[in-house]
Amino acid sequence: MRNIRLTLEYDGTDYSGWQIQREGRTVQGVLEAALASMTRAPTRVRGAGRTDAGVHARGQVANFRTECHVPPVGFHRGLNAILPRGLALLEAAEVDESFDARRHARGKRYTYRVWNHETRTPSEERTTWHVRAPLDVDAINAAAQPLLGEHDFRAFRAADQRESTVRLMRRIEATRRGSVVIIEVEATAFLKHMVRILVGTLVAAGRREITSDDVAVILASRDRTRAGLTAPPQGLCLSEVYY
Amino acid sequence: MRNIRLTLEYDGTDYSGWQIQREGRTVQGVLEAALASMTRAPTRVRGAGRTDAGVHARGQVANFRTECHVPPVGFHRGLNAILPRGLALLEAAEVDESFDARRHARGKRYTYRVWNHETRTPSEERTTWHVRAPLDVDAINAAAQPLLGEHDFRAFRAADQRESTVRLMRRIEATRRGSVVIIEVEATAFLKHMVRILVGTLVAAGRREITSDDVAVILASRDRTRAGLTAPPQGLCLSEVYY
Repeated sequence: MRNIRLTLEYDGTDYSGWQIQREGRTVQGVLEAALASMTRAPTRVRGAGRTDAGVHARGQVANFRTECHVPPVGFHRGLNAILPRGLALLEAAEVDESFDARRHARGKRYTYRVWNHETRTPSEERTTWHVRAPLDVDAINAAAQPLLGEHDFRAFRAADQRESTVRLMRRIEATRRGSVVIIEVEATAFLKHMVRILVGTLVAAGRREITSDDVAVILASRDRTRAGLTAPPQGLCLSEVYY
Repeated sequence: MRNIRLTLEYDGTDYSGWQIQREGRTVQGVLEAALASMTRAPTRVRGAGRTDAGVHARGQVANFRTECHVPPVGFHRGLNAILPRGLALLEAAEVDESFDARRHARGKRYTYRVWNHETRTPSEERTTWHVRAPLDVDAINAAAQPLLGEHDFRAFRAADQRESTVRLMRRIEATRRGSVVIIEVEATAFLKHMVRILVGTLVAAGRREITSDDVAVILASRDRTRAGLTAPPQGLCLSEVYY
């Protein structure tokens, strides 16, 4: 069997997230249908990150196994010709048969965008969270310090998960470009809703409602109810997966 | 009667253009309905530019007359609270009763965005024209030279118009930012589809299919069939109106 790695970009607005479901249009579902039509065989795709409904990607990575003899460039062009608007292939490559996009990912970088202005902006509505109160980017960066390194991030995850909640946080960095505040988060792996809850908490710090000491207390509490709200999905983008 | 000037931003994707029609959702129609609900009186809005279906705006200007005593900041906040996603008010101001957004406009600036890359990109699909062949920005700027100044732009307008087709072209400038080629066009006023036909022609120059001499011949011919194709609407944005 050949093993093909895909790098994908999508506008998550009109998708019910990555993972295939019984109902709802998902990225995985649309991609598997396109691959089945190209390869004439049912084809299962493994994605590196299970992005939530409404979350975007500029560097999602996935792989699939196939008997089909189409070269990578053929998958690249062919898939882009049949995939719907809002979903495109950036790259296709043949990889070692052992490669698994999910299990082999060593880290991921997510980018969260906040539109920080009194008035909403149509051009950024699909890609930002609108926060009216002025955000102090230095306060966000200061509040992020206790989160760096290896910690149990149980306070920053949605609902119960059986798996370990310990993750290594490599980088959290907020920058401002005009009215857009960008928060980049890089870790070995993420828990469900983790980036969005981190952002909800850091935005509270940017509004000077909480300090970095409060963030340290929240982290240590391992109690989801102490962390901030879950930031909405449309500001979030899976930017890169590291192998 | 008070006269209120509005500065508007919209994502034109889901609108049948600016101008109110019997059928189809238009920016003017949605705005007039919102104003009627705020002022409790039928309210006619005059827009500076009649943008086509699918064309965006970041600086559309409009005005309306009203007996309503709501202050400008009240219109600003009130309209943004009731206008749908994709349409927002950037500014509201009370102006002299003689001000007319359409007749008093002394110039307009449009921005056209081309996604110039082999692969399409979901994040730019709503706001760019996808052109695969590499574009030479210097060739575009050279080809634009014959268009500068006062000319009869009959070759660059859709269908028949009874009005004069002479316009003063102040600036045409193409720049590249990575895979995005931006063409800015500034003139006293524009004919129907004029920017889009100019861009279609200039992109042919960027592909080295025609030269600046050809553009001069097309302009002098006053013959629409000699100019390039009409570039698609989604790359176009009304950036600014000058008074």
